[in-house]
Amino acid sequence: MQNQTSALWQRVESSLLKQGMMQHLGVQLLEVAEGKVILSMPYSDKVAQQQNTFHGGAMGALADIAGGYAALTMAPEGDEVTTSEYKINFLAACTGGHLLATGKVIKAGKRLMVTTAEIVHIASDGTKRDCALMQQTIVPVVKK
Amino acid sequence: MQNQTSALWQRVESSLLKQGMMQHLGVQLLEVAEGKVILSMPYSDKVAQQQNTFHGGAMGALADIAGGYAALTMAPEGDEVTTSEYKINFLAACTGGHLLATGKVIKAGKRLMVTTAEIVHIASDGTKRDCALMQQTIVPVVKK
Amino acid sequence: MQNQTSALWQRVESSLLKQGMMQHLGVQLLEVAEGKVILSMPYSDKVAQQQNTFHGGAMGALADIAGGYAALTMAPEGDEVTTSEYKINFLAACTGGHLLATGKVIKAGKRLMVTTAEIVHIASDGTKRDCALMQQTIVPVVKK
Amino acid sequence: MQNQTSALWQRVESSLLKQGMMQHLGVQLLEVAEGKVILSMPYSDKVAQQQNTFHGGAMGALADIAGGYAALTMAPEGDEVTTSEYKINFLAACTGGHLLATGKVIKAGKRLMVTTAEIVHIASDGTKRDCALMQQTIVPVVKK
Repeated sequence: MQNQTSALWQRVESSLLKQGMMQHLGVQLLEVAEGKVILSMPYSDKVAQQQNTFHGGAMGALADIAGGYAALTMAPEGDEVTTSEYKINFLAACTGGHLLATGKVIKAGKRLMVTTAEIVHIASDGTKRDCALMQQTIVPVVKK
Repeated sequence: MQNQTSALWQRVESSLLKQGMMQHLGVQLLEVAEGKVILSMPYSDKVAQQQNTFHGGAMGALADIAGGYAALTMAPEGDEVTTSEYKINFLAACTGGHLLATGKVIKAGKRLMVTTAEIVHIASDGTKRDCALMQQTIVPVVKK
Repeated sequence: MQNQTSALWQRVESSLLKQGMMQHLGVQLLEVAEGKVILSMPYSDKVAQQQNTFHGGAMGALADIAGGYAALTMAPEGDEVTTSEYKINFLAACTGGHLLATGKVIKAGKRLMVTTAEIVHIASDGTKRDCALMQQTIVPVVKK
Repeated sequence: MQNQTSALWQRVESSLLKQGMMQHLGVQLLEVAEGKVILSMPYSDKVAQQQNTFHGGAMGALADIAGGYAALTMAPEGDEVTTSEYKINFLAACTGGHLLATGKVIKAGKRLMVTTAEIVHIASDGTKRDCALMQQTIVPVVKK
């Protein structure tokens, strides 16, 4: 069971709670470990595109923060992180249920961090399906 | 002055109006031409990250549809388009005002289309600043 | 022990032997399985950049074919594959020894395939180091 | 006519001459300006794939250095540049003649630079064709 009072969890959660967009879309934090973060996003009209599947932009946003928060768990104490760039491939169109995004740190450099994020769709009946794969470059920045 | 009754305009607008996410974020259509689309997104809490600048995910979502709708203007009549993948570089952190995204078709192939999108920030005082640059692969799909 | 007379091995090898560039750079096939291919590239002046480390272009070329050949193992009999696009992050600068590239299929769609490739450097003394990570879109094409 | 004795030209050329791979492939410098570089690569067996068109890896390598050298023209005196990542879309398969790659700086930041490169094929009869489009992140590094 995830210890939600751990310093790592609080570091990620306190940032997520300040993200207006993610609060708005109902994104929740599920797991935090060194170099790894799992987030969920429920299906709703707010994340839908014209055919009532999850919007690519919503999947991109979710993958972006999954990778970014994975990086944050390995950034020097007090630093923030910012996304330099990301690239995402969409693997399937999914509707209903929710998305699970798992961000992982591949390289934790001082100047640049490289991460990946996988998005899996969990349908209402529990069926799992790969939805998207992202590769990302993160820059640690000293908080002002 | 853009002719908002043109067939191209209506083709793009009717899709945009069905995108729950984009309606939610206040995205508006400004210009539609063959191979080119311009969209705007106003700043609000719904597109903000933890430091009150536009969320990278919001910029990614906006760039995604700008490129996608540019492709739609060149897809065979009746076809839809879907995003295979995109890659976006962030150039600056911006807050307030609104974003302008210009999507352009680079190659309109039968099986794949390649597009780019540039996002520029327009501050409340009119100051312009380059915000993001995207490169994307789009697949035309026959509407069922 | 890899069965070098298997149909999959021969399918990949016969294509690799026709690639002038890869023959020139000394690239060798080490492993072929359904959805997975491993290739090696020895260090030489032909793949060096100005500081005598492996050229990013050489790593990109190696990753490109590792992903492409992994896709080829899952393409319909008789089809070829072509690269639509790839994105590569460089993780370390490496010199001497050789590179090992492992290409894997993430999604084998009819119209598009998504792959990844990891490049690891093996130094003369056997030390291993992650060098590069690639994500790629492949298009199966009917051979004429 | 390009002044081949300019400091910018010499800065780029002296690096290019040290790149074993690029010398090997016959890459030549055609134009150097602040934030822009043009290079050419002749068709040969050394850059061919299995169907005798330019290898995607050769195009990736050429685009990589076109963007990188454009960045070098805007990096602080004495600094080198290194590629963090790039993403390339292939637009056409081309054979014979030569490739022209034009690298441009989109953003010249202190910590990161963003560039693009366009590759155009020039056939033996002078016909031009768009071949590839790249988007790249470059890191300026202090020379040791």
